[in-house]
Formats: sequence, structure tokens, C-alpha cells
Amino acid sequence: MTDPFVVIGGDAAGLSAASKFAREAPDRDVIVFEKGKWVSYAHCGTPYYVKGTVERLTDLLSLSPEQAAERGIDLRRNHEVVGVDTDAETVAVAHDSETFSQPYGDLLVATGARAMTGPIPGTELDGAFTMHGLDSAASVRAALSEPGEFAVDTSIEYVDTALVEKYTDWEPPERVAIVGGGYVGVEMAEAFQAHNIETHLFQRSGHLLPPFGEAVGERVARQLREQGVILHLDTAVEEIVGNRDERVTAVAHDGGTTDVDLALVGIGIRPNTALLADTPVDLGYSGAIAVDEYGATSVNRVYAAGDCAEDRHAVTGEPDWVPLGLTANRAGRAIGQTVAGDPSLVGDIAGTAVVKAFDLECGRVGLLDHEQASAAGFDPVSTTVTAGSRSGYYPGGDDTDVTLVADRNSGRLLGGALVGEDRAAIRIDTLATAIEADMTIDELERLDLAYAPPFSPVWDPVLVAAKVLNGQLE
Amino acid sequence: MTDPFVVIGGDAAGLSAASKFAREAPDRDVIVFEKGKWVSYAHCGTPYYVKGTVERLTDLLSLSPEQAAERGIDLRRNHEVVGVDTDAETVAVAHDSETFSQPYGDLLVATGARAMTGPIPGTELDGAFTMHGLDSAASVRAALSEPGEFAVDTSIEYVDTALVEKYTDWEPPERVAIVGGGYVGVEMAEAFQAHNIETHLFQRSGHLLPPFGEAVGERVARQLREQGVILHLDTAVEEIVGNRDERVTAVAHDGGTTDVDLALVGIGIRPNTALLADTPVDLGYSGAIAVDEYGATSVNRVYAAGDCAEDRHAVTGEPDWVPLGLTANRAGRAIGQTVAGDPSLVGDIAGTAVVKAFDLECGRVGLLDHEQASAAGFDPVSTTVTAGSRSGYYPGGDDTDVTLVADRNSGRLLGGALVGEDRAAIRIDTLATAIEADMTIDELERLDLAYAPPFSPVWDPVLVAAKVLNGQLE
Repeated sequence: MTDPFVVIGGDAAGLSAASKFAREAPDRDVIVFEKGKWVSYAHCGTPYYVKGTVERLTDLLSLSPEQAAERGIDLRRNHEVVGVDTDAETVAVAHDSETFSQPYGDLLVATGARAMTGPIPGTELDGAFTMHGLDSAASVRAALSEPGEFAVDTSIEYVDTALVEKYTDWEPPERVAIVGGGYVGVEMAEAFQAHNIETHLFQRSGHLLPPFGEAVGERVARQLREQGVILHLDTAVEEIVGNRDERVTAVAHDGGTTDVDLALVGIGIRPNTALLADTPVDLGYSGAIAVDEYGATSVNRVYAAGDCAEDRHAVTGEPDWVPLGLTANRAGRAIGQTVAGDPSLVGDIAGTAVVKAFDLECGRVGLLDHEQASAAGFDPVSTTVTAGSRSGYYPGGDDTDVTLVADRNSGRLLGGALVGEDRAAIRIDTLATAIEADMTIDELERLDLAYAPPFSPVWDPVLVAAKVLNGQLE
Repeated sequence: MTDPFVVIGGDAAGLSAASKFAREAPDRDVIVFEKGKWVSYAHCGTPYYVKGTVERLTDLLSLSPEQAAERGIDLRRNHEVVGVDTDAETVAVAHDSETFSQPYGDLLVATGARAMTGPIPGTELDGAFTMHGLDSAASVRAALSEPGEFAVDTSIEYVDTALVEKYTDWEPPERVAIVGGGYVGVEMAEAFQAHNIETHLFQRSGHLLPPFGEAVGERVARQLREQGVILHLDTAVEEIVGNRDERVTAVAHDGGTTDVDLALVGIGIRPNTALLADTPVDLGYSGAIAVDEYGATSVNRVYAAGDCAEDRHAVTGEPDWVPLGLTANRAGRAIGQTVAGDPSLVGDIAGTAVVKAFDLECGRVGLLDHEQASAAGFDPVSTTVTAGSRSGYYPGGDDTDVTLVADRNSGRLLGGALVGEDRAAIRIDTLATAIEADMTIDELERLDLAYAPPFSPVWDPVLVAAKVLNGQLE
């Protein structure tokens, strides 16, 4: 009997790998060590739980420990891997204040990422949160609820009940500060506004959602203001300020101080790689784990997937770190299959991302930033057009802003962004597909896309933008 | 001065060509002969005008004669081209009961298509309609309105006022028959139901929307029944029956006779090519005009575009006839540019089509039919899966049925269809793009498509289907 397939981390990548492996190699053992109380859940759903669109936190749990067991996975929760020895091919596992050694035949590092808090002091205060994990989602929702009205479902053990209960007696905040205008900040602004809380959003740069480009950022800013969010652009938060009870009372920023009862920090995430510090496993330029097209690291029989790993970018062909849900699921699944004996590509990433900003749908893909495109050896040309999402005479449409970036020499589509209220998000998949197919703007312009008055005008907004950009390239 | 660019037909293809040409070659003349009273308008919007979603028929007019003139187009309405002499390079034009000869430098045949009525007798009766053109749209809407409530906008001359006024005194029908379960039939069923009219839909075959495949057809049938439409599948209409006043009273079919006050026939269209019967211009296998990749016919300086012409299919590489709006606009524009001296490809067609059926969105692309795929030299394998359109915990999603067809040997994606209530139609563009890029199912499965709970699950329905079909191919 060979040593088991050991997986570190029981979230999207880890459990996708373990599930696929258990199905494809039912004779071999697979052990998943998860340091937390729970396993796979929908990170991206947490803002909608806080908002109230999703009623119960348990709705976000995607796979129960029982289901994992049924799949033939030896799942060990509250087991933290504290060391990896790639020479001995073992991991050191801490559980119940004891540590034991577990040999592995193949190893998958799927340790995920953690929310950044630094360099902002004060994130340890009561009432200061990041939106990363079930604990913080439950805590924020508890803090927003009337005292005593919130109760954790204790029928299953999945959150830090003591932490959450600390907030159940809080009066709902009257004013909140969101630090950071990325996905989390924008989604949480919508969540707080739904509770009629005065919401201040602080963004260090002049644009919201920087990876989506300026056209999206500006329209989202307009939307947030229309919805009552108080935007502080070009404003860096220096400190979250607390009182003697260690409770948040304000945020200090370069424009002064704003009193708030709660602060939410969403300034990005970092890959969890500390575990590999003393191993020969190579990290990439981004600090995430470097892998090949099968998800294999620089060390034999050691794989990495999910938010802790890099992937190859479809446009540059170079490694990039874009920690998102599909990538984690897909790479995990491919690695499970590879380890089971059937080599399977993890697939390139195109950097496809979508986000809802109140009524707006935003999407982005590929290389949008000219500097980034130039650094990758391209000569970027771009255009932004505004086009209707439906035939003008058919109600329910909305202006859709489309940004396209192409390489001047080859005409190749490098990136794109979309924003609008009517089906703008899903339209990004057209561009994602075109980018992964290495299409030129000329080919994009001639795509036979769908037309019917209730869904699209004769010339889809994507085609309109391609036509304009193609004109610039000629 | 060279002879002018002459265009026969003032609809999408003709006016797109004339507009582009006038812009690119402002020194040359362009004359458009249109036999009707009006020019370019949105065919696809007419069912929504009858339904009432679009209030005024004039909302469907896309370009006015004045606007055409401003673009530098010499537009002649009520001018019917009755002959083409490709040796003399002239066309014979009838106007006001006189006929004159017009020389051309280049000629575009953009004569469109006409609705089929045969072999069903009775379509000439009062109360029998096809849904092709502004006249029939106005007439049906007039017939559905209370007597005297409907009035044609006579400030501009765009419909046959006498014809329409015949129907303004009609009592609204209590029961209608729709003959044919294609686009027109399905869209008109929605339109009639909106007016609370008992609607009978007769379809000769066992499935609605045959080009969309069985999965779509069956779901649309369920939807129509739920919405109150009385479906008569596998039922051929033999005759539209009238009374002594030549007015529709019933439809006779192979199951008996159904009394109705109005009948709408939507059993397909045919290309208008009679004009070329005595010319050496070649028609293709479909009966539409054969063209090359620039829209040029077999005769020098004669082009064809729009519903009267074939195009090259992206999957088979062979000519096909798929008369739809985008194709007409796109080909017209390319030909305008080519004739102006800058050769421009008209682009392949992928057979992309979308249609709304009450709350359902339906899409199709490529080769779906196995027989058709086999005839084109492929070994088709297909699957249909049902997958959620959003993360399960996020409200507003709907089951989406996805059909994919691939070639067993190469794994190449050949076709696809989608149906569901939540953004199913727009998702067809992902498949259209993949098909035009010659993607395999394996590549499709690994696409980095968008994920965010309000818009899509981690695995988009398209990816779920690709995963399943790829499993069948292995």
C-alpha cells in the first residue's frame, strides 16, 4: 500500500482534489487536514449573508464533513499542519495540543489566503473586521442585528461561537467605515446600506475596483453615491481608533477623523505560504507558490492549488496570481485526477472576474492596465464605448460601457471590461472565451453573436466596441 | 465619373452597405431602390409591437429616408427593380407605372426574403396574416384593438394605410390560430396571450423551435402550456377556412377543425431571388444567392447580402442560409467597404440565434442536429445537462438546460443550445465565440468564465455541460 494522498486545507481546491481523487483512485487513501472547524463554503456569498439576501449562514456551506466522508475522504478538522518535510515526505500535524507526523505519497498544499490588515493599526479592536471566513461573516451580521436577535445555529459546529456571541449584544452601528474599494468594499457597501447604516467608503487611490479599469470604477463610484454611500476617494486610512474598552470609535485618515461604530477592512489578501518557508518548494514572483501546468511545484510529488498558488495567464503565458473561486475548484479537480494517474491540465487563467455593485454588473478579463500590458511586451491600444444592452425600442435595457484593450502590432485582444445594469456581467464571458482563443479584434468584430430585441441589439455592445477599436488599429 | 453603386433593397443589408460606402467613398454615387414605402426597420421587434411592449410602430423604424439622405444616399422609395442585365450592367426600375434603365458600376442584391404561405390554402383571407413587414404588424395590432381605438400615424408614409384601416373596425378576436412553432409562432403566442386571447398553436412536428433541439423545444412547450397556450403538436394545418365574406372562421387540421377569428402563419421564409432568374448569377443549394467570403456573386461586380444570400458556416466551412439580422447588417457593411475599395470579409455565420418564450430565454448555435453533423463529416456526440444559473443560495436563479454537441474524433465543439429563465440567452455567446474559435470540448471545459453568486455559480452551466460531455468523449 502506497502512502496516502495528503491534502492541506479543506476548502475549494483541497476538497475538489480529494473528491476527484477518491472517485478516480478508490483503492488509495486520501486525508484532508483542515485547521478550522468547518470545510468548503462559499466565500463569495458572505457579503450577501451580511446584507440579508442569504438568510442563514449555513446556506453557504457547500460540502458537509459527512458528505466528504461519504465520498471516501478521510477528513480531519481542527488539524493544523505545522510543518512539511519534503525529504522525509511527511507533514507534522497539530491536533488537541499534540503533534504527530503523517507520511504522504503525494501532497497538495491548498492553504488558501488570508485577509491583509497591515499596515493599518487597530484591526484587532472590537468592531474591526475583515470579511474573510465564516467567523467574520457571522460576527458582522451579529453586530448589525438588534441585541439578542441573532443566534448562531449550534446544531453543527462551524463557527467560533464565543467570538460571534461577543457581538450579539451590540447595538446596531449607526455609522460604519469600509477601508478599501475593491470587491469586498463595494459588496459590503451594498450590504451595510441595506441595513440603513451610514456607510463611509475609503479608497486610497482615485478609483474604485482598480482591476476593472477607470470606466468601471467611475460608473461604480457614481452608483455608490446615488445609493447613499459616502465615498472618500484618494483618502488613505491611517488608523482604526478605539476607546478604553478596545472598541472601534473612529477611523483616522489623511483628511481628518471620521467617527464610526464599526470598521471593515478589505484591502486585499495574501497567500498562505509560511508553512513552506523551510522547504525547497519555490514561490513565484507574487509570493504565491509556483506551479507548472499540472499544478506541480518545484518539488517532486508536491502540488499546490487555490488561493495559495500561482497559475499561468492566458494572455502573457507567464505565471500570475489571481485567487478566485473557479480557479481553485478547477485546479484542485485536475490535480486530483493527475495524482490518481491521469495527468490533467489545471488550465490557464484569464483573470476573469465579475462583481455586483448595487444595480450595476461589472466584469473584467485579461490585461486592462496599459503598463502591465507594456511590461508583458505588448503595445496596448484601448477604447471605451457606451452602447445599449438591448434594441433601443425594447424596455429594460441599459447603457453598457465596454472597454477593450488590444495589441497594436498583432491586433490581439488583450483585455476587456464591462459595466451596466442589464446583463453586463455575463457578457464578459464572450471576451474571456475570445481571449483564451487568442482572437484578434478583427475576429472579435466579426463574431456571430446573439441578437433578439429583449436580450441584445443587432450589434452587441462587445461588437460595437470591437468595431471602434478595430478602426483605431487600421 | 464611374457608374454608381446600385443597391436593390432598402433594409438592413442594403442600407448598411450604402451607408458604409457613402462614408468611405464620398465621391461616388450610391443609389438604393426600395420597392416599398419605407426603409430599414426592426423586423424582430414586430411581435413586441403586437404584444404592446413596444408602443408605437414607428419606434421600430431604424433609419428614416431623411437620415439616409443626410448620409449621402440617393434613396428611391416605391421604386421596384424588375430586371437585372449583368451583361449591360444595368437594372430595370419600375416607378409610377413607368420603367427606366439604370446603369451600375457595382450592384448589391439585397432583396431579402418573404414569408411562406404555401402549401396552406386560405392565407389570402381577411384575418389571415404572416408576420413579415410593417403592414402585417400594423394590421394585426389593429385587429386586436377595440374598434376605432387603433390609428396609424399618418404624419409619415410608411405602411399601407388602406390595408391597416380594414382591420381597425374589427372586434378583437376571441380565438386565434398560430400555424407553425418556430420563432414567429412562439413570439406571437406570447403576444396574443398578453391580449387575453385564446391561443391555439399548431406545429406539424412533435417539437417547438426545431433548430434549437429537443431539450429547448420540450421546455418551451411546457412553458407555453403553463402560460395558457393550447398546443397542438404533431398536427398539420391543412387549410385556413373562411366564410362567404372571405373572412377567417376556422383552421382545418389532421385532428379536425378549430374555430378561430384570426390565423397567423409562421412556417418559414424564402429568399427573394426571382429577379435573378434570367441572369447568370448562381444560386446556392438552399436557393439563396451563392457568394464568396466578400459577398461577391458568381458575376463580376454583383454582390448579394442579407436574407436573400448564403454565407459560410463557421463549423462546416460550407455555404449555409441562415437569414438573421446581424448577418445582414454585417455583410452589408463589409460589402460597402469592399466596393469602396477596401476589401473586407463578410464573416462566417455560426447560426447563433436567441428567442424569448414568455419567461424563458432560449439560445442555439452551430450544428445541433446529429444528421446534419454527420452529413458534414463529423461523428457527433451530445449531452444535455441541467445546472443552476446562480449559486444555489442566491435568489433569482433558474435551472438552465445546456445541450452540447461535439465531434468524437477531434473533440471539437460543433453546436450548443441553452434554455432557462435567468440569463440563458446571453450565455449562448460563450458558445458562439468558442465555436468560431474552433475550440474543443476540452478547451471549453477549462475556460476561465465569470463567477459571482448573483450572476453565475462557480461552474457556469456551460462548464458543467462541457465537463460531462468531455467525460463521454474520453
